[in-house]
Amino acid sequence: MANNRRVLLKSRPQGEPTPANFEIADAPLPEPQDGEYLSRTIWLSLDPYMRGRMAETKGYAANVNLGDPMVGGTVGQIVKSRHRSFREGDFVVEYSGWQSYAVSNGAMTMKLDPDSAPLSTALSVLGMPGMTAWWGLMQIGKPKAGETVVVSAASGAVGSVVGQLARLHGCRAVGIAGGKDKCDYVVNELGFDACVDYRAAGANLFREIRAAAPKGIDIYFENVGGAVQAAVVPQLNDFARVPLCGLIAHYNEMQTSPGPDWRLLLIKRATVTGFIVSDHFGQMDGFWKEVPAAVKSGKIKYREDIVQGIDNAPDAFIGLLKGRNFGKLLVQVSEDPTRR
Amino acid sequence: MANNRRVLLKSRPQGEPTPANFEIADAPLPEPQDGEYLSRTIWLSLDPYMRGRMAETKGYAANVNLGDPMVGGTVGQIVKSRHRSFREGDFVVEYSGWQSYAVSNGAMTMKLDPDSAPLSTALSVLGMPGMTAWWGLMQIGKPKAGETVVVSAASGAVGSVVGQLARLHGCRAVGIAGGKDKCDYVVNELGFDACVDYRAAGANLFREIRAAAPKGIDIYFENVGGAVQAAVVPQLNDFARVPLCGLIAHYNEMQTSPGPDWRLLLIKRATVTGFIVSDHFGQMDGFWKEVPAAVKSGKIKYREDIVQGIDNAPDAFIGLLKGRNFGKLLVQVSEDPTRR
Repeated sequence: MANNRRVLLKSRPQGEPTPANFEIADAPLPEPQDGEYLSRTIWLSLDPYMRGRMAETKGYAANVNLGDPMVGGTVGQIVKSRHRSFREGDFVVEYSGWQSYAVSNGAMTMKLDPDSAPLSTALSVLGMPGMTAWWGLMQIGKPKAGETVVVSAASGAVGSVVGQLARLHGCRAVGIAGGKDKCDYVVNELGFDACVDYRAAGANLFREIRAAAPKGIDIYFENVGGAVQAAVVPQLNDFARVPLCGLIAHYNEMQTSPGPDWRLLLIKRATVTGFIVSDHFGQMDGFWKEVPAAVKSGKIKYREDIVQGIDNAPDAFIGLLKGRNFGKLLVQVSEDPTRR
Repeated sequence: MANNRRVLLKSRPQGEPTPANFEIADAPLPEPQDGEYLSRTIWLSLDPYMRGRMAETKGYAANVNLGDPMVGGTVGQIVKSRHRSFREGDFVVEYSGWQSYAVSNGAMTMKLDPDSAPLSTALSVLGMPGMTAWWGLMQIGKPKAGETVVVSAASGAVGSVVGQLARLHGCRAVGIAGGKDKCDYVVNELGFDACVDYRAAGANLFREIRAAAPKGIDIYFENVGGAVQAAVVPQLNDFARVPLCGLIAHYNEMQTSPGPDWRLLLIKRATVTGFIVSDHFGQMDGFWKEVPAAVKSGKIKYREDIVQGIDNAPDAFIGLLKGRNFGKLLVQVSEDPTRR
């Protein structure tokens, strides 16, 4: 067996993360104790929230200590087990972070059936991003047929599911994405009604969104903040709902950024609700009823952006914060024996 | 009978309204037609939302046309009726605006029983401000015993009810008000747990609120915006609720004012909900069950700030926007025969 290759947080970023904030280091393989198992990481999920975990400032969760491996959701295969619920060869989704092997007590581990769906989907459409999309749209947004749903970062792991779910529930789905390729994909492959390329739109962003959502916006699924937010919020309809999922445009900022004038929210009787999916993992019955079947039947499509090798995780993550990925960003850390 | 004295909107304010924006003019008494009645205005309610109705910009409701009387809730007595549901001598709460007489078809009129509560309370604690407080706190805020509720404009018609209701539901009630007299009243008369004088606090506002709400803020009932909002929002607890009722600090502004950084809302999973009570007049069963009895028993107290004579309405309204009133601002337009 190999060493355990890990990506450690070396220093905290000031603004944009750089490769110097990370350190790649090999360690001996850890040994599972009674009640633990050792797994080999196959897939590592890279997600925008990780930027928050690199900071010193207080965020939602325990941030990463300097010298520790970066955190993250993973799919792995168990190579050695002293845990009664897990056997050698089992595939699992877990939270073992940016490392090629990990020991776990199984507290946050779920077994995966490789015959029911590709393993990697446990980190995308059938995992945390899919649940995020479903919770925000269905439980906070509460879409009604005929309404208009606008979602930023529309080609991403969360946004792509938001728009497809909105369509399945009879809504007009309008995506906002950066670049023609992403917008073409959102409309032609995912079936959104329209997509606005915010990079190409520039100063016409407000008008282009207006043209794509001529009846105004009933639900704005917020992933980005920034100029997109500023163009969308004045176009909210009365009683609009804004599931506030992410603000990727601001994650590298060192200072606070003002939000929209609350007079807009008052006049429109709008509701803005910040949420984090991990608060709701126990309330996902509706997700499990709806989304896996829709993925299997092809009604919900997904796209993966796969980077090979854990050494490339830092660069891929830095690119993610700039919108360079196209689809769910995954690092393939080791071979997936179920993948043809 | 006298003429009908009316306060007309003469010009639209640029920033703060001034007396020159209003014109006081006498008109002949209007004559009710079949299905209408004529009422004599006794009480006129002055409320912050009226600033919005003076503007040209699109707000929630039809704004006042130049040359028309200012709008507003009123209590009156019917002096002549050709309406089958209303008789001469009946007391009513209606929406007849800044004028001493009005003809109405009764579509927005409710009869009042002068024996059940003082007539003027139909414009304050048992009227629109009381319903606003109840809806925002109970239906949007959803207070749980032990939580901390902060309300701005705490001595006002809405804020005073919010804090007293919060106490009745087992919450810590913290008021924010301008001036020592108002704060003393909020704590000593209304029974709030604490009150912060934002004018005296100055740059220490954040710390004084922290001291008054040491466990953080679960519900912020927003009436004002501005510096108070900026000091409160960073102190919201996880899953905080913000019923967004008013933003009086901004009503005279000609330009948009940025709101709080949405990252604060995201990290705290907070919900901000703009609302307007008139959307919910049909959903007030809980209000009628709870509030009139609490007023009668003295568990909910109220205070009126009464200005005599409709000619003084413009100055009183201008003062309202500066926080000069102390309690529910009412104009006594004519004699209240039920008042000793």
